[in-house]
Amino acid sequence: MILLNGKKTSQEIKEEIKLKVSAMKERGERAPHLAAVLVGSDGASLTYVGSKVRSCEQIGFESTLIRLEDDTTEEALLLQIEQLNQDATLDGYIVQLPLPKHINEERVLLAIDPKKDVDGFHPANFGRMALDLDAFIPATPFGIMQLLERYKVPTSGKHCVVVGRSHIVGRPISILMSQKGPAGDATVTVAHSRTQNLAELTRQADIVVMALGIPEYLTADMVKEGATIIDVGITRVADDTHPKGYVIKGDVAFDEVAAKASYITPVPGGVGPMTIAMLLQNTFLARQWNQA
Amino acid sequence: MILLNGKKTSQEIKEEIKLKVSAMKERGERAPHLAAVLVGSDGASLTYVGSKVRSCEQIGFESTLIRLEDDTTEEALLLQIEQLNQDATLDGYIVQLPLPKHINEERVLLAIDPKKDVDGFHPANFGRMALDLDAFIPATPFGIMQLLERYKVPTSGKHCVVVGRSHIVGRPISILMSQKGPAGDATVTVAHSRTQNLAELTRQADIVVMALGIPEYLTADMVKEGATIIDVGITRVADDTHPKGYVIKGDVAFDEVAAKASYITPVPGGVGPMTIAMLLQNTFLARQWNQA
Repeated sequence: MILLNGKKTSQEIKEEIKLKVSAMKERGERAPHLAAVLVGSDGASLTYVGSKVRSCEQIGFESTLIRLEDDTTEEALLLQIEQLNQDATLDGYIVQLPLPKHINEERVLLAIDPKKDVDGFHPANFGRMALDLDAFIPATPFGIMQLLERYKVPTSGKHCVVVGRSHIVGRPISILMSQKGPAGDATVTVAHSRTQNLAELTRQADIVVMALGIPEYLTADMVKEGATIIDVGITRVADDTHPKGYVIKGDVAFDEVAAKASYITPVPGGVGPMTIAMLLQNTFLARQWNQA
Repeated sequence: MILLNGKKTSQEIKEEIKLKVSAMKERGERAPHLAAVLVGSDGASLTYVGSKVRSCEQIGFESTLIRLEDDTTEEALLLQIEQLNQDATLDGYIVQLPLPKHINEERVLLAIDPKKDVDGFHPANFGRMALDLDAFIPATPFGIMQLLERYKVPTSGKHCVVVGRSHIVGRPISILMSQKGPAGDATVTVAHSRTQNLAELTRQADIVVMALGIPEYLTADMVKEGATIIDVGITRVADDTHPKGYVIKGDVAFDEVAAKASYITPVPGGVGPMTIAMLLQNTFLARQWNQA
């Protein structure tokens, strides 16, 4: 069994970008610049955004954190977005989700210039990705593709079952893995809440991508010997024996499934750490594409 | 066995649109207006475009056929497209494919205003479709969804195997059928040229969508009793015993598969006739959305 170590791989990707950024600077070019917009003071969101900003600093990117009050109106936020769209010194930006309930999230995401949409949530990016054009790929599926590619996990002609059809994980990873190219050419099945006999499907799969959000749902009896297991689940489960009062669980019953798997991602330390690396990669791509 | 009669269903859809258009006109509103751009004088393309224009007339749409010479430059075509984008009396238009080899098809399709892209080929439309937003859906998958819905073919929780991953059929139908909604909620597998053991997959399927382009590829031994079969293939096969010198064959060995199927589309007269009806439906939607 080979552990798909996202912590290590994400570090490698960041190092690679860091080297390219320092070469850019030596050539006298402007470093990539990422901005993050945070509305309100949700603790988890603050942590995520803070971590993204720190990662920028580590690899030599410019970064800007724009904090807006909880009661910011939708109009004010849209105005801020328009300014970011116009800002020629900015390559890409993200609007940290969730937004306060009085703001229409869809309207906000559609207002982001697709050329700066480094989260890859805008339909124009999603469509470009699905039609095999250059696009910003959402960080989680992009990270999974990198893990598969860098660990040389065989995918061509293999049967991959994706459990979950969300817009940001299940749907895009199912498209990417069935396209031509590295970590692609798989025969991909998308399963979801309405799927009948899920275990029958996953037992046939050479690769299972779990993106369901139900802790330890995938058990050893649901996978075949030698399968590759990608676990996107991150759920906090209460646990009094831990100092934080909770532990993080994936969608996979790790120990028993790992015993049968050929490759598997741990939780934490698998897909999770890849997402920030891929956001940085998208920002780097934005810097290249927008100047061209 | 129930025949999914696309010829009849497409007539019904056209009749429904015709009634709505005549109500619009009675209210003093402008009728929907579709334009088609044809570059060159390819016989098949002329036939298709002619048929689209005639269909517009039958149901009371305005239509415009723009014919450009074979040696039209890409710049001239892009200029024409810009004019069509600006034309406030025009709801939607199509650029008939294929284009002459000296013209970059991708550049042309990307120049079409997504709001007038009634073929649904622009990435902005594709992304909107994939993210469950209002969108122009490409005619062939849109037509399949209508057939499934109008014949009340059960899809929720069913296993559908789509054979083919093209941008205009396989990919979009796989997304649509696995989304929530009418004719949706299926567990969908996308198979393609790299798929191993295709017959093993299709034999498990409750619904098979064949979009491969290989005549009579799907045989009776590849399907289970009671399956629903959608045949998107249209291939001309030489046949001296026919006056035209050829016959049209689908991807399905119809007679033997029909004997096992619960629902099946014939070729011709199945998916094919639905496409023009759905182009008209998209034009009707364009008329509604763009005035709103």
